[in-house]
Amino acid sequence: MKRIGILTSGGDGPGMNAAIRAAVRTATVRDVSVVGYMDGYTGLITGEFQELFDRSVGNVIQRGGTILGTSRCPEFLDAGVRFMAVQQMRRDGVEGLVIIGGDGSFRGALAIEAEHGVPIAGVPVTIDNDVWGTEETIGFDTAVNTAVIAIDHVRDTSEATGMMFFVEVMGRTSGAIALHTAVAAGAAGVLVPEAHEQVEELVERLKRSIERGKRSHIIVVAEGDEAGGAFAVAQKVGTIMNHPYRVVVLGHTQRGGAPTARDRIIAGVSGALAARALIEGRSGIMIGIQRGQAVEVALKDVVTNSHPSPDTSLLSLAQELAG
Amino acid sequence: MKRIGILTSGGDGPGMNAAIRAAVRTATVRDVSVVGYMDGYTGLITGEFQELFDRSVGNVIQRGGTILGTSRCPEFLDAGVRFMAVQQMRRDGVEGLVIIGGDGSFRGALAIEAEHGVPIAGVPVTIDNDVWGTEETIGFDTAVNTAVIAIDHVRDTSEATGMMFFVEVMGRTSGAIALHTAVAAGAAGVLVPEAHEQVEELVERLKRSIERGKRSHIIVVAEGDEAGGAFAVAQKVGTIMNHPYRVVVLGHTQRGGAPTARDRIIAGVSGALAARALIEGRSGIMIGIQRGQAVEVALKDVVTNSHPSPDTSLLSLAQELAG
Amino acid sequence: MKRIGILTSGGDGPGMNAAIRAAVRTATVRDVSVVGYMDGYTGLITGEFQELFDRSVGNVIQRGGTILGTSRCPEFLDAGVRFMAVQQMRRDGVEGLVIIGGDGSFRGALAIEAEHGVPIAGVPVTIDNDVWGTEETIGFDTAVNTAVIAIDHVRDTSEATGMMFFVEVMGRTSGAIALHTAVAAGAAGVLVPEAHEQVEELVERLKRSIERGKRSHIIVVAEGDEAGGAFAVAQKVGTIMNHPYRVVVLGHTQRGGAPTARDRIIAGVSGALAARALIEGRSGIMIGIQRGQAVEVALKDVVTNSHPSPDTSLLSLAQELAG
Amino acid sequence: MKRIGILTSGGDGPGMNAAIRAAVRTATVRDVSVVGYMDGYTGLITGEFQELFDRSVGNVIQRGGTILGTSRCPEFLDAGVRFMAVQQMRRDGVEGLVIIGGDGSFRGALAIEAEHGVPIAGVPVTIDNDVWGTEETIGFDTAVNTAVIAIDHVRDTSEATGMMFFVEVMGRTSGAIALHTAVAAGAAGVLVPEAHEQVEELVERLKRSIERGKRSHIIVVAEGDEAGGAFAVAQKVGTIMNHPYRVVVLGHTQRGGAPTARDRIIAGVSGALAARALIEGRSGIMIGIQRGQAVEVALKDVVTNSHPSPDTSLLSLAQELAG
Repeated sequence: MKRIGILTSGGDGPGMNAAIRAAVRTATVRDVSVVGYMDGYTGLITGEFQELFDRSVGNVIQRGGTILGTSRCPEFLDAGVRFMAVQQMRRDGVEGLVIIGGDGSFRGALAIEAEHGVPIAGVPVTIDNDVWGTEETIGFDTAVNTAVIAIDHVRDTSEATGMMFFVEVMGRTSGAIALHTAVAAGAAGVLVPEAHEQVEELVERLKRSIERGKRSHIIVVAEGDEAGGAFAVAQKVGTIMNHPYRVVVLGHTQRGGAPTARDRIIAGVSGALAARALIEGRSGIMIGIQRGQAVEVALKDVVTNSHPSPDTSLLSLAQELAG
Repeated sequence: MKRIGILTSGGDGPGMNAAIRAAVRTATVRDVSVVGYMDGYTGLITGEFQELFDRSVGNVIQRGGTILGTSRCPEFLDAGVRFMAVQQMRRDGVEGLVIIGGDGSFRGALAIEAEHGVPIAGVPVTIDNDVWGTEETIGFDTAVNTAVIAIDHVRDTSEATGMMFFVEVMGRTSGAIALHTAVAAGAAGVLVPEAHEQVEELVERLKRSIERGKRSHIIVVAEGDEAGGAFAVAQKVGTIMNHPYRVVVLGHTQRGGAPTARDRIIAGVSGALAARALIEGRSGIMIGIQRGQAVEVALKDVVTNSHPSPDTSLLSLAQELAG
Repeated sequence: MKRIGILTSGGDGPGMNAAIRAAVRTATVRDVSVVGYMDGYTGLITGEFQELFDRSVGNVIQRGGTILGTSRCPEFLDAGVRFMAVQQMRRDGVEGLVIIGGDGSFRGALAIEAEHGVPIAGVPVTIDNDVWGTEETIGFDTAVNTAVIAIDHVRDTSEATGMMFFVEVMGRTSGAIALHTAVAAGAAGVLVPEAHEQVEELVERLKRSIERGKRSHIIVVAEGDEAGGAFAVAQKVGTIMNHPYRVVVLGHTQRGGAPTARDRIIAGVSGALAARALIEGRSGIMIGIQRGQAVEVALKDVVTNSHPSPDTSLLSLAQELAG
Repeated sequence: MKRIGILTSGGDGPGMNAAIRAAVRTATVRDVSVVGYMDGYTGLITGEFQELFDRSVGNVIQRGGTILGTSRCPEFLDAGVRFMAVQQMRRDGVEGLVIIGGDGSFRGALAIEAEHGVPIAGVPVTIDNDVWGTEETIGFDTAVNTAVIAIDHVRDTSEATGMMFFVEVMGRTSGAIALHTAVAAGAAGVLVPEAHEQVEELVERLKRSIERGKRSHIIVVAEGDEAGGAFAVAQKVGTIMNHPYRVVVLGHTQRGGAPTARDRIIAGVSGALAARALIEGRSGIMIGIQRGQAVEVALKDVVTNSHPSPDTSLLSLAQELAG
C-alpha cells in the first residue's frame, strides 16, 4: 500500500485530531503517503482532499474538533454515489481508508469494503461511548470531564442558595455520560434511558437529604431519558417538593474542547494501530479497547451489535453516596 | 466599633468568599470581632449567624459561591421585619454591617441605615456588571471567562461542521456579559438589550462570511435581548439563511466556579476597604472601581442611578473583526 | 462493626476527599459511625480525630488535598508506638480502619493488623501509579492531565520561538506520569527510569525533526531518570545540538487540584468498597483496578511485590509519532 | 496606504494572535492588504513573509503563542541590517508596520521610523506588565491567572501537609506578576524586586500564622527578587523556622496558554486601533490602556521612560490579609 486516505465523519469529538496525527505519522514513517478527505464522506464524493505530511499534523494533538472537517452525509447511503466515490478515490491513488467516527460512519465504510473491496480500518470517536466492541470511545472522557467541571460551577450556586439543579447532559440513546458524570459530580440523582429511577424515589431521597441539612442538590438527566428532558423532570420534582430549582442544559459545550490526556492517548494508540493494520494488509477492523487493551475488532460485529448498557452499578453507587 | 456583621445577599457570584475573607481579616487585625449572618438578610431576621475568625476564612479565597449562604429575602421589604432584625442584631452586639451583593441588596441596607442608624458598607458582587458607581462588579470577569471558554468548545464543533451556533449568555437587563464575551470569543454577531443589531444585518454579515469560506459562526445572544432568546433568534436567522444551526444556553454555569485572579483582587481590595470604612466610622458607602481605582461611593447614588450601558464601541468592534 | 476510622497518609493526591466521602457514606448508610484521624498515623498516635457525618463530607468531592490532613509518620515504624496507637484507637471505640494512601502507608496498616488484629482496608491514592495490584492509582489521571495542560502552554512558546523545552514531571521511581504525559502531549522524546532512550538517539531524532521544519520540541523527563534531572539532560542535548532550550520543572503543581472525573469515580468506587469490605468482616485487602474492574487484592501482596514497569510500548509510540 | 506588515517580536505572550487577527481584519475591511513577517525582525531581514487574509486569522483568537513566530533579533541593532530590511520591505510593497511585542521591540521600530521614515504602530504584549504608557500589557492577565491556578493546586498540598511552599513566578525586573498573584492566591508573603519585605518580617508573620493554626503557607517570590530566587529565600526561611518547605518554579508555563477574555479584548481593541492609526496616517505610536481606556501613546516616550513600579499597596494588603 503506497497511499491511504483518512476522513472524520459524523459528530465531531475531542481526540479526532490526535487520531489523525497518529495515523498520518504511522503511515509516513513507513513511506506510505496520506491524503485527508474533507468533511467526511462528502470529500470522498467530491474528491476534495489535501495531502497530509508530518508537518500538516503538527500542533493539533491538543485541539478539539477536526482539522479535516466532518459531516453527516446521507448521500453516501446511495450505492451509486458510493460507486462514484470509490472511482474518484482510485483516481487519487488511494488504496485504503482510515475512518474516524461513530458506528454510523462505519456502516458506510463497510459498504464500500463489501461492494468494492476497499480496505478500511475504523477508529471509534464519539462522546457518547455507545460503540460496540470498545469499552471507551475517544471523546467520552473529555465530555464527562467537561460536564463535571460545569457541575462544579453549578454546585457552588446550589450550595450557596439551597436550590436544586437539574443538569441535562448529552446522550440520546446512552446514559454513559450521565452515569459517569453523576458519580464524579456527587449528584443526588441521575436519570438515564437504560435504568432510570422512578421520580418518586428521587423525591424521597431529596427530601431526606434536605432534612439532614444538605444544601446542594444536583440531579443529572440524560438527554434521552424517558421521563422527559431535564425541564420536564425538574417541573415534576419541583412541583411535588415545592422547592426552588433551576435547569441547566449543557448541550454542545460537551462536544468540543481540548481532549483530556486519556482521550489523546487512546486516540494516538488507535490511530496508529488502524493505519498499521491497513498497511499490513488487514481490513474491516476497528481498534477497540477491551479490558484496558487496544485490540482489533471486526467492524461487521461493531455495526450489528448494540453497545451494552453502561455499568448501572454506578447508578446505585451514585444513589448510595448522594448523602 | 467592637463587632461587625457580614452577609452575602441576592444571587451568588464568584469572589464573594474572597470579599468575606478580606473583611474578616481587616476587622480582626484591628481587634474588631466579626459574625457572619447566614443566607443573607434571612439570617439577620432569624438571628442565625456564626462567629468568623481568621481561620474561618482560610482556604476559601478560591471558591465560588458563598460560605455564608445567600438568598433573596422579600420579607426584608417589610419595615416591621427590618425593625425586628435590627433588634436582634443589637442583641448580638453587632454595630455595623458589610453587605456583599447587588443593588437590590443595597436597598435593604440603606433602609436599616435610614430607619435605625445602622452603619453599613457595601461590596458589589454580581456577574451582570450592572451596578452604578463601579466600572466592574466582582464576579463579572469570571462569568465572562466561563462563557468564553464554553464558546471555545463550541467553536471547535462549528469549525468542524460549518454549523452556526447561537449561544445565550446571562444578563437579563444588561448586555455587558454578552458584549465582552462576543469580542473575546471572536463572535460573528452579538445581540444585546441595549443596542442589538437588526437580524437582517446579521444575516447579511453571516452570508458574506460563508461566501468567503469562514467555517465557524458564533452568535452571542444576551438573555434579555428584545429579539427574543437565543432559540427565537436562531430560528429566525436559520430559516432566512437555510443554514444548519444549534442553540446553546450557558445558564447557571456562568455563576459559579473559582473566581479569576482579577475578581479575587477586586474582592480582596473591596472587602478590606468596606470593613475599614465601617471601623473608621463611615457609613452608607459602597466600594466601587472608577478609572481603575477603588473608591468609596455613596450607596444612595448607587440605588437611585441606573448603570450606564456597556461600552457599545465593543459592539462595532466585534462586528468589524468578525471576518 | 459499629465504628470505623479513616485516615489519609503519605503524599496527598487528588481524589483522597472523594474516597473519604464514599467511605463515610457507605458506613453511615449501614449505621456504622465514622471518625477521621487527623494527619495520617500521627492522629492515630495522638488520638486527634473528628467525627465524620454525612454532612462532614458534603461539597468535598471536587477538592484536591485531604480534609483530614496527611503526613509521613516515621514514628509509626516503632512497634511500641503502634501498640500505644492501637490502645488509643480502641478507647475511641474504633474497630477497623480505612487507610487511604500509597504502599508505604499500607505497611503500617499491615503491621497493626498482624500485631493487634486490627481490621484494615486500603485505598491506593498516589499520583505516581506505582502500587502493585492496581492498574491505576487514584490521583494519577489528574496528575497526568495537569502535566499535559502545562505542556500545552509550553508548546505555544516552543512553536512561537523554535526553542526546545525539557519538562520534568514527577515520578522518582516510576516513569508512568512521564510516559503518559509524553504521549498525550505529543512530546518529541521522553526519558524515564525504566527504559530511557539514549541521549544520542534523542539528539538524532530532534535533528531530523528540525530539518523537516518542526518548530515545537518538548522532551519529557521523569524526576528519577538516570540521565539526571531535566537540567542535566537539557544541557547535554543543548550543547550537542547548539540549539536554544529552556527547562521547566512542574513539581508540586501536579499533586493538587480538583480531581478529574476518572479519579473521582475510581475514588468513589474504591472508598465505598473498602468500607464495605471492613463492615462485612474482611481485612487485609486493598481495592485495586484490574482489567478495568474494581477488585479486592491482598495487601500483603501489594507491599511485597513491586509495581510492574509502565507500558513501554507507549515509549516507542511516542517516538514514532513525534514527527 | 495599500499594504501593511505585521510582526511579533521578543518573548511571546497570550493575546498576540488576537492582536494579529484584529489588525488584519481592520486593514482588509479598509482594502489594505496585509503581510505577516515571520519570526519578528528576522523575517523583515530575510524577507520571509506570508500574505494574511481574513481567513488566515480564523480560529486563532483563542491560541497562545504567535502564528507568525517570534524571536529576539540582535542583528537588528545594526543600522546596516535595518537599512537592508527596509529596502526589502519596500520591494514587498509594504508601507507601514504593526509591531507586536515589548519595549525592546519598539526600539527597533523607532529606529527604522527615524532612519527611513517607515510608519509604525505598536501593540504592547508581554506578560511582565512593564511597559511605560499602559496600565496593563496584553498577556499579563493570562500569566497571573495561570500562576494563581498553579498555586491553587499547591495550596491543596500545603493545606494537607502543613508544609510551606515558595513559588517563584516570572518577572525579572518587575514584581507585577508576583504582587497580583500573591493577592489573588491569598499568599502569606511576597518578595518583589521593587519593595520586598525583609525576610525577618516574613518569618515573624509565618510564625504567628502557624501558632494560630493556619495550615497552608504560600510565599510568592518574583524571579528577580534581590533576596535571591525562590530556592535561596526558601532555604533561609526554612532554616530559621525549622519548618518543612518545598519550592516550585512556575517558569515558562506562565507564558503560553489560551489568553483570558480580558487579554483577548485588550488585544482586539489594540490591534484594531494600531492598524487604524497606521492607515489613517499616524505613526510612532503605541496603543496603551490609561484609566481603563485605550489611547495612543508616543512610542518615543514608551522607550525612554521606565514603567512605574506596580501598586505596592497590594503588598501591604497581601500581608494584612494573610491571616
